Amino acid sequence: MVVVVKKNPDKEQFENLTNWLKSLGVTLHISEGESNMVLGLVGDTSSVDIDLIRSLAIVEDVKRIQEPYKNANRKFHPEDSVIKVADGVEFGGGTFNIIAGPCSVESEKQVIEIAERVKKAGATMLRGGAFKPRTSPYSFQGLGCSGIELLIKAKEATGLPIITEIMEFSQLPLFDEVDVIQVGARNMQNFELLKELGHTRKPILLKRGLANTIQELLMSAEYIMAGGNEKVILCERGIRTFETATRNTLDVSAVPVLKKHTHLPVVIDPSHACGYSNYVKPLALAATAIGCDGLMIEVHNDPQHALCDGAQSLTPDAFDDVAKACFALRPYSCRY
Amino acid sequence: MVVVVKKNPDKEQFENLTNWLKSLGVTLHISEGESNMVLGLVGDTSSVDIDLIRSLAIVEDVKRIQEPYKNANRKFHPEDSVIKVADGVEFGGGTFNIIAGPCSVESEKQVIEIAERVKKAGATMLRGGAFKPRTSPYSFQGLGCSGIELLIKAKEATGLPIITEIMEFSQLPLFDEVDVIQVGARNMQNFELLKELGHTRKPILLKRGLANTIQELLMSAEYIMAGGNEKVILCERGIRTFETATRNTLDVSAVPVLKKHTHLPVVIDPSHACGYSNYVKPLALAATAIGCDGLMIEVHNDPQHALCDGAQSLTPDAFDDVAKACFALRPYSCRY
Amino acid sequence: MVVVVKKNPDKEQFENLTNWLKSLGVTLHISEGESNMVLGLVGDTSSVDIDLIRSLAIVEDVKRIQEPYKNANRKFHPEDSVIKVADGVEFGGGTFNIIAGPCSVESEKQVIEIAERVKKAGATMLRGGAFKPRTSPYSFQGLGCSGIELLIKAKEATGLPIITEIMEFSQLPLFDEVDVIQVGARNMQNFELLKELGHTRKPILLKRGLANTIQELLMSAEYIMAGGNEKVILCERGIRTFETATRNTLDVSAVPVLKKHTHLPVVIDPSHACGYSNYVKPLALAATAIGCDGLMIEVHNDPQHALCDGAQSLTPDAFDDVAKACFALRPYSCRY
Amino acid sequence: MVVVVKKNPDKEQFENLTNWLKSLGVTLHISEGESNMVLGLVGDTSSVDIDLIRSLAIVEDVKRIQEPYKNANRKFHPEDSVIKVADGVEFGGGTFNIIAGPCSVESEKQVIEIAERVKKAGATMLRGGAFKPRTSPYSFQGLGCSGIELLIKAKEATGLPIITEIMEFSQLPLFDEVDVIQVGARNMQNFELLKELGHTRKPILLKRGLANTIQELLMSAEYIMAGGNEKVILCERGIRTFETATRNTLDVSAVPVLKKHTHLPVVIDPSHACGYSNYVKPLALAATAIGCDGLMIEVHNDPQHALCDGAQSLTPDAFDDVAKACFALRPYSCRY
Repeated sequence: MVVVVKKNPDKEQFENLTNWLKSLGVTLHISEGESNMVLGLVGDTSSVDIDLIRSLAIVEDVKRIQEPYKNANRKFHPEDSVIKVADGVEFGGGTFNIIAGPCSVESEKQVIEIAERVKKAGATMLRGGAFKPRTSPYSFQGLGCSGIELLIKAKEATGLPIITEIMEFSQLPLFDEVDVIQVGARNMQNFELLKELGHTRKPILLKRGLANTIQELLMSAEYIMAGGNEKVILCERGIRTFETATRNTLDVSAVPVLKKHTHLPVVIDPSHACGYSNYVKPLALAATAIGCDGLMIEVHNDPQHALCDGAQSLTPDAFDDVAKACFALRPYSCRY
Repeated sequence: MVVVVKKNPDKEQFENLTNWLKSLGVTLHISEGESNMVLGLVGDTSSVDIDLIRSLAIVEDVKRIQEPYKNANRKFHPEDSVIKVADGVEFGGGTFNIIAGPCSVESEKQVIEIAERVKKAGATMLRGGAFKPRTSPYSFQGLGCSGIELLIKAKEATGLPIITEIMEFSQLPLFDEVDVIQVGARNMQNFELLKELGHTRKPILLKRGLANTIQELLMSAEYIMAGGNEKVILCERGIRTFETATRNTLDVSAVPVLKKHTHLPVVIDPSHACGYSNYVKPLALAATAIGCDGLMIEVHNDPQHALCDGAQSLTPDAFDDVAKACFALRPYSCRY
Repeated sequence: MVVVVKKNPDKEQFENLTNWLKSLGVTLHISEGESNMVLGLVGDTSSVDIDLIRSLAIVEDVKRIQEPYKNANRKFHPEDSVIKVADGVEFGGGTFNIIAGPCSVESEKQVIEIAERVKKAGATMLRGGAFKPRTSPYSFQGLGCSGIELLIKAKEATGLPIITEIMEFSQLPLFDEVDVIQVGARNMQNFELLKELGHTRKPILLKRGLANTIQELLMSAEYIMAGGNEKVILCERGIRTFETATRNTLDVSAVPVLKKHTHLPVVIDPSHACGYSNYVKPLALAATAIGCDGLMIEVHNDPQHALCDGAQSLTPDAFDDVAKACFALRPYSCRY
Repeated sequence: MVVVVKKNPDKEQFENLTNWLKSLGVTLHISEGESNMVLGLVGDTSSVDIDLIRSLAIVEDVKRIQEPYKNANRKFHPEDSVIKVADGVEFGGGTFNIIAGPCSVESEKQVIEIAERVKKAGATMLRGGAFKPRTSPYSFQGLGCSGIELLIKAKEATGLPIITEIMEFSQLPLFDEVDVIQVGARNMQNFELLKELGHTRKPILLKRGLANTIQELLMSAEYIMAGGNEKVILCERGIRTFETATRNTLDVSAVPVLKKHTHLPVVIDPSHACGYSNYVKPLALAATAIGCDGLMIEVHNDPQHALCDGAQSLTPDAFDDVAKACFALRPYSCRY
């Protein structure tokens, strides 16, 4: 951390500052310029409140130099993490997986039919919403427990591992046979939930919040990892911008940025990013090309009657086409 | 809702669409133009999936006309809601309250000292964090239960009603003697929590999420109200933009927009919006002028040693000055 | 256009509105609902001020249905436009071109050396800044006219057509031998410049502004086309968001959205979008995969001494690698 | 400027970097930490390309410490600038002016009538658009020269100084009798125009771009001031965010931030910020309260027939009310 002190600071305030910094266990290097003085803070600065320092009368500016995350940091873990979610299904380390399935689980027939179709097309995991976060209290909120039971039936029928979203941690016991627990964008900073998931040993797929920076995504991963659960898969699903032609703006740059800063695998969800089924294929191809470790795509056998988010769901036939195109392109994609 | 159908639509698809719409209980008015046809949907369209319709091949565009919220809608409740939080302390209907206190509760001495000072300056409610949502797992997370106990002691000592943040609903029993439960910006779309709070009869202060629209804030209020709890106070606390000179960008326009669309009281938190104590006074004055129903301000007796968010806290002396200025300006502020 | 009128509107105001609308030459279709009335406006509504109508006391909401652009609209020109910029170099209609060259032209040796290298790697047009828009008045502002002369020398030496940016229209005479005139992001809504370029018959590469919507980009293209110049190439180069890990956020979704709404070719500039040379390759691959009609990439033979934007420039060797990867991936990319 | 170098950097690259920095005339202070080395750059770093340094293989991060503007910087000019625009009309130094008038000048009768009304209500300058930047080429583009002539007639009739927008610098001779030249938001980074205006000695009102940071606004002011014209008035008029309930989001925080960093006066335009006449009064009051040096408000005697931006215009009666409310509140507003 670097603290820029104004020219000719009040002596007492300056001493207070340096004493306080030393009391936090950091060493100071002072270099004096013409119009201000620069304090270089050396040591573990993760507990120093940067905003507090910035607010002091004698301080002109403060800059953090080290990343505030440790477990998720590639610097301390240069190799890609490889996260096994089921026999033969691993994320990271050069693999490429497509997760597919309906937005909401609706019936045994629906979920098994879709599971069979996406498996045939090359998907290696089944997604399906049981607990659904909906903006409106009057929208369908998901089948809940029985939705999870239907997913488990589809898992038994097809052998595909399953992923579904948790909404709050009292639901945890229901996730025993779920292979990957999803934390949705709206819960990315539900820190109580993250802490609790840190105590499990289940793989977690953590979605980036609509207005969260890449660094905040990594800090939320750090919450889970700090609890001892290192099996975190990150997911970019679009951020909120002023553009209204798509529901959100897919930030594909998040992939190279994350690959630089973390060893965790990165998945992209083009369905939620754009909100329209006709844009899913182009975005899935861009995501594959930029070298993400997997895709998460909504598929529905009857999008016109889907209980939620039907607009962004592909038909099984359209999914066949998308998966084929992505697998064909994959050998030419970026590698890190 | 208005659906724009492309010129010469496929007949079968068009019939499917109109039949499906009718099956949802809405009536259709068709008006044909030169280059497209407009379907006017009359009736309760809150359950119609607008994105789904938009994705149909024969549809050019869809527009929602009615607001998707009911309980929070001023149209159906033209008078301001007045929410009583304690004897003599009401929000809405022309009142103006300042909520003040430390970011985090640290000790009995600290919280009582601050409570006494802010009461003397005119504050009518004491705020203080017991459970703290922090971006980093390595930052101070609040005193938890014992923090709430200290707040209750300050309430007993000063008579000020208290407000503190809930992080997840298993904490609810701890809030028995808390007068207003705060839902933080990061939990604005924690729908499970909102539903649960809808079953209580406690006043709820609901903060707008960093990247949430005003309409989404109202939909979250609707979640609480749909459960039967109509005591919701809304809070604008800054949204995320590209500007970096302030922590967030205070959206003062939210006040007149909310006053138009809802009968619920609106409070502004200038401390979190800017992130720097030296900008709190200007923002508090702007917020007062635009006619909000109250302010929420961080005050600390020793900002340099505050355990969190010290940078945005005022000293009690600075708070005296801000409160005085706001009370003086209040008679000249906007009324709705 | 659809106007939603409040229930039981003031009769005189309602008549004023309908008379005024008719005076603009549009036909009205009225459909009455339970809680409001919907006016469907049929005819050319491009001159109707939507915001004005929205502000009327009796109006609840207004929605535009038709796109406000004509010449750029794919609806009226379903085939891709193919824009010839030089013998054998065409944009649109299934071609794929890479434009490459230095941020700023610095010397004859520099620009010819780079031109030869990028040509060898497969680039079909040379870019190079002569007039440079710089945030600071103290930064290098480009070589101006002599920069254009150097570009022309490189064109003579290599046969590559050239593109360079115009800053205001008094510079137009200097662009006689320039093959494509670039309008930079900051000038996307410099309407006087656009009008003037509409009177030329030169191909124009129009960059999207940092905070402009896709529809606004098309409206700016419409300015040029309305003047009679239909040779417009659109360029996405990153938009401004809250994310700070990259200079801007590349909005790859702009490609499928533009392909849906316009027949004009679309180029992506990954260099300006990210701002860092190490992210150029991943973004170039994503852009190729999503089916853009070309790329625009900064290349410098000595990035450490580049006079501007060195940080985002590739070395010629790095460019070889990027071009090769993009050409290899191109056959697997999205087509429209 | 502070450069953070990675641990154990390549020796040759490190020497190249330090030699190059020294060649730019800056002095280096090196402080070595455990996991990296910090170079403090002392001297004039305004010509150092921060992005270039950041892209070097051995560099971990770079931070700028000094603001990149000089003439606009309060540090070097602690007193408020006072800009005289006409006899008895000054901006800055504690004054408060309201600029009012129609979006577009339409006729002599219209502009004189409005001028008389706003003067009576306390406005001290008349605004009116002659050259209008419109998103659509099919919208009314203003009366041009004859619009300026009508403004001059209104000036003669009422004695009010006048302000109108310039679109490009060939129009400059038409502005001889205009008292303040406005640079619109879309031209904030039209650097050729700014340079040219720097050579005049007319007061310039510079509007913040829709997606420009406060620092970029100051850099654009610096362009004008570097040319020798120090008469710059800054104007905040709303920035682009994800919120759609208002046309833009008024960033009131810009006032205290600008007051801290610059000595130039700051005006707020609530009409363009919100886009709806019914939100102008609340925003004008907030702007007054936060201590801006003036307001700029659209007034039209027949908003329903205004040729442009009618939706955000007040009637003269409504303006009377707003002006009165702002003057009444002004004594209680924030001072710097």
